Amino acid sequence: MIPYIQYLGDNRCEFTVWAPFLNNLAIQFIDQDNAIHMEKKSHGIFFKSLENISPDTLYYYRLNDQYNRPDPASNFQPHGVHGPSQVIDHTSFVWQDKNREGIPLAKMIMYELHTGTFTQKGNFDAVIPRLDALCDLGVNTLNIMPVAQFPGERNWGYDGVYPYAVQNSYGGPDGLKRLINACHQKKMSVILDVVYNHLGPEGNYLAQFAPYFTNKYKTPWGDAINFDNAHSDMVRNFFIQNALYWFKFYHIDGLRLDAVHAIFDMSAKPFLQELSEKVEDYSKKKKRKIYLIAESDLNDVRLIRPKKTGGFGLDAQWCDDFHHSLHALVTGEKTGYYQDFGKLEHLKKAFKEGFVYSWQYSNFRKKHHGNSSINRPNEQFIVFSQNHDQTGNRMLGERISTLVSFEALKLIAGVVLFSPYIPLLFMGEEYGEETPFYYFVHHSDNDLIKAVRNGRIAEFKDLQWQGAPTPPDPYDKENFMKSKIRWEKRENDHHKILLNLYTCLIQLRKTIPAIANLKKNNLKIHNEKMNLVLKLERWCQNSHIFCVMNFHKEDQSFQMNFSGNPWGKILDSSDRIWDGPGSSLPQRINQTERLIIRPLSFSLYKKEILS
Amino acid sequence: MIPYIQYLGDNRCEFTVWAPFLNNLAIQFIDQDNAIHMEKKSHGIFFKSLENISPDTLYYYRLNDQYNRPDPASNFQPHGVHGPSQVIDHTSFVWQDKNREGIPLAKMIMYELHTGTFTQKGNFDAVIPRLDALCDLGVNTLNIMPVAQFPGERNWGYDGVYPYAVQNSYGGPDGLKRLINACHQKKMSVILDVVYNHLGPEGNYLAQFAPYFTNKYKTPWGDAINFDNAHSDMVRNFFIQNALYWFKFYHIDGLRLDAVHAIFDMSAKPFLQELSEKVEDYSKKKKRKIYLIAESDLNDVRLIRPKKTGGFGLDAQWCDDFHHSLHALVTGEKTGYYQDFGKLEHLKKAFKEGFVYSWQYSNFRKKHHGNSSINRPNEQFIVFSQNHDQTGNRMLGERISTLVSFEALKLIAGVVLFSPYIPLLFMGEEYGEETPFYYFVHHSDNDLIKAVRNGRIAEFKDLQWQGAPTPPDPYDKENFMKSKIRWEKRENDHHKILLNLYTCLIQLRKTIPAIANLKKNNLKIHNEKMNLVLKLERWCQNSHIFCVMNFHKEDQSFQMNFSGNPWGKILDSSDRIWDGPGSSLPQRINQTERLIIRPLSFSLYKKEILS
Repeated sequence: MIPYIQYLGDNRCEFTVWAPFLNNLAIQFIDQDNAIHMEKKSHGIFFKSLENISPDTLYYYRLNDQYNRPDPASNFQPHGVHGPSQVIDHTSFVWQDKNREGIPLAKMIMYELHTGTFTQKGNFDAVIPRLDALCDLGVNTLNIMPVAQFPGERNWGYDGVYPYAVQNSYGGPDGLKRLINACHQKKMSVILDVVYNHLGPEGNYLAQFAPYFTNKYKTPWGDAINFDNAHSDMVRNFFIQNALYWFKFYHIDGLRLDAVHAIFDMSAKPFLQELSEKVEDYSKKKKRKIYLIAESDLNDVRLIRPKKTGGFGLDAQWCDDFHHSLHALVTGEKTGYYQDFGKLEHLKKAFKEGFVYSWQYSNFRKKHHGNSSINRPNEQFIVFSQNHDQTGNRMLGERISTLVSFEALKLIAGVVLFSPYIPLLFMGEEYGEETPFYYFVHHSDNDLIKAVRNGRIAEFKDLQWQGAPTPPDPYDKENFMKSKIRWEKRENDHHKILLNLYTCLIQLRKTIPAIANLKKNNLKIHNEKMNLVLKLERWCQNSHIFCVMNFHKEDQSFQMNFSGNPWGKILDSSDRIWDGPGSSLPQRINQTERLIIRPLSFSLYKKEILS
Repeated sequence: MIPYIQYLGDNRCEFTVWAPFLNNLAIQFIDQDNAIHMEKKSHGIFFKSLENISPDTLYYYRLNDQYNRPDPASNFQPHGVHGPSQVIDHTSFVWQDKNREGIPLAKMIMYELHTGTFTQKGNFDAVIPRLDALCDLGVNTLNIMPVAQFPGERNWGYDGVYPYAVQNSYGGPDGLKRLINACHQKKMSVILDVVYNHLGPEGNYLAQFAPYFTNKYKTPWGDAINFDNAHSDMVRNFFIQNALYWFKFYHIDGLRLDAVHAIFDMSAKPFLQELSEKVEDYSKKKKRKIYLIAESDLNDVRLIRPKKTGGFGLDAQWCDDFHHSLHALVTGEKTGYYQDFGKLEHLKKAFKEGFVYSWQYSNFRKKHHGNSSINRPNEQFIVFSQNHDQTGNRMLGERISTLVSFEALKLIAGVVLFSPYIPLLFMGEEYGEETPFYYFVHHSDNDLIKAVRNGRIAEFKDLQWQGAPTPPDPYDKENFMKSKIRWEKRENDHHKILLNLYTCLIQLRKTIPAIANLKKNNLKIHNEKMNLVLKLERWCQNSHIFCVMNFHKEDQSFQMNFSGNPWGKILDSSDRIWDGPGSSLPQRINQTERLIIRPLSFSLYKKEILS
């Protein structure tokens, strides 16, 4: 593996850059007139070791004596995507997380957070004071949306162009380190969202250095990253080193790999497999388990199968089918990909197997889709009732809280947190935040701004025919400001009640073995015929729970069949303490009987242990 | 699975065609004025059942009342790629191959044959009289280059545009059936080369019917076939039905799948896996083993791994690495992909593992390449010293017989036939045919002819700088005629000697258990340090052989180390009966000793069994 820029201490710095087709590459320090020429080594690597380089030195690479360009592996871009790169001394930060144990995957309660809109200040330091509240909620793992330097100050992060540089407006390298350090001190793990399928359009000078891209495949964002053509070894090196960089210098506990379906790679050892091998090697060497979690649109267990059975060996993946099943069921929406969902059967299959589409015909995709995940362990799936995409990719960025009733919100919380998968909350979800999560960008290129605006309008053309408003302007700062969550709401009214419910559900999930246990076989699920009631049983040794969920907007009756010990009620979301209409279910069930459950509610029972 | 045109007997015929975006589709019979409108059913299928349709009826499909186009699934194009399609009665042919047993993969001796140049007549019927000679040679499996209708009369077959229509100039459906019937009567199996990665450029009207293609991926021949995008189910149906069609109506025993590396497919059940599933189902139902053999540039065992360990479950693949190792070693060529080969080490690894590149850096590809095939059974690899590509893709189409000495030709034969893989000969190889195998086309579109010519010139630009002649004109009929093999040569001179040697080697391969046995563990191979001698031991129960091969142009000494019974010589390619300089090796070796082997020769010994 080839490293890139490395500050070695004592004002010594090694510069390494890959540019196989250039003859002439130099380092242009901002405070010096003359550029310093680098030596070309094998495989197109330029190298220079220099002394008297203090940390924080600003530099460009100078290409063929003509252009100054930032370092593709820049560790920091203090003046944005077009400005000079800065030398960073990663040894100077004082970490206080020695000997910590990370949260094991199966015990993770994830919280997805967008740094720019989580707080008014919109930076890493502003997150820290809120960590205690997240710990109180029960969350133990932050999932931070991408932080690689993007153009301007407003972006989801998927337009990042310097994979190694922490966004300047978020607080740069030290800001991120302070946040991670604080998380680790509070025993929280941190997963970082990284984008290895494309780079943003503005400030992307990589193609001037080397064949990072290929036109052999098309992605929604243009040419694909070259993972399997000539020279792809060094492209892979760039991204694999990036992964290791986050673990080494930022103590990151895992990566969320964005949209791996847009990583096209026909080689005999696909990039994702190589990445997973290298991360596994690093994990073993450091005796610290690091997780790789994919976002994928493919419903393909190849991603998460072990390498020895032909898989890539990733640890887990997000399970969109679970979300879509739940969302379509509670909202009744039927557009776009929701047309493939909407029946209780779908949610039931998601509970039992993970993927709902396991090579069935998808009307949305107009083709068969997916393969079966029935044999994959349950901790390999991350589930959620919303995330940045499922809100922000709506024309108006609506969160689920503005689409369904309060009763339904509570039900949704129960579905996710009592599911036998890894739950993920989207920031603000825990108290029913209603602010939209808009799509926003802050490019400086006018053509690009126009293109993004028009793209957004084109995307929702169909909706506009139906008389809806036009999409909010992604470039308008107001829309970014409106997307910031209002943390203070959590203290009041039904926000507070929902927060208490989430806290209670997470607590139950952590403490009741039958819920904490994610084993596939310890689950029984049925739906009552012809109505929208789901009955879920889970067990683990002596612990045995029963959960009934009513997706109907009216009271529903269901049959309680059992043998053995009676069941004691633990929680009913329709109870008055949760601002519901009041429970219709008994505290204790000791005989087979027909019971009534309130609209859009769930209730949890635990089998009593008689001594 | 949806069928296409089906003649049902008694002048009844069902027409089925897929055209999801057309509103109006009709059948236009050549001898009728009015077109007959078809009914549009679900999934964009148009259907019409008609009576009074005699076999041999000519028809077009009429698109939106505007254009007449041949049937994409046409069974016959008697007037070429632009002409009408013909109804074919597949039930009328009288097969005489009932209850035959096909040749098991591990026992196949393959012979690749291009129908147009194998005989002067260039059709199927002309092949039949030569089958006895092939049987005498010991060949038991024909590998017929593609027969799908292509433009004109001269083509390798990879410009085919009607995957179901047998080339008119080769003799059409009945001609092919007669050939296969004759093969089966002689206990030969037939493998057909099919092209599922692209269709030829001329006469390709498929895109006017349906989204058969996608611009998401690029192949060397333009847009890729749509195997994973919207509507790909029916594209897969088209090709899977095609595979089954050859088994059902033509009694084909297996398919060679052309260039599967150009089949781009990211879906959770890739096309090749689905194809292999469906063919397996058919095989089981018919109780007749049918083989799928891939040509692949990927060195990826995923193709041939069983489905349960994440593979596609194909039966075998061609092993180019074996060829390249052998070719580079004996010719000393260093251009193109041969730059990655040329050492005895490469051939040794090919013998031991199959793939030489199992994730090593390839200088030709400028990247790491391949994965390890060490755990795959040896009968999964087809090996050869030449094939249509390895001759025809050279600028001058030279066969190996014109590149190396007669001694080397014999050595090459021994390497392939004593290898623990499935051997394949390219027509004429067995008697050292020297006619070139040129690249030839017979398009009718002038622009296309020009493009092919220029493409060929561009491809060999580098060679022309070195002062070589320009590439022969692919459109010139003379170059096609020159590519026809001269079968009569096999009776004379060194041609006859080589033919005898091939016959003898195949006979030995079939009768000596240690050679016939393809088990991976029953093989020991070493090269003598610093020279070009390869020593190969193989065994199976009581049978034990030793083969020594000298790739040097001078006598070489080698050490014979052994314990146990003495070895008796079976064959030495340097013997005078093979027109060699005379063997320097003893008839019998009964002690460890240093021996001398002739230049470019091989010798085979068998361990004697003492009673």
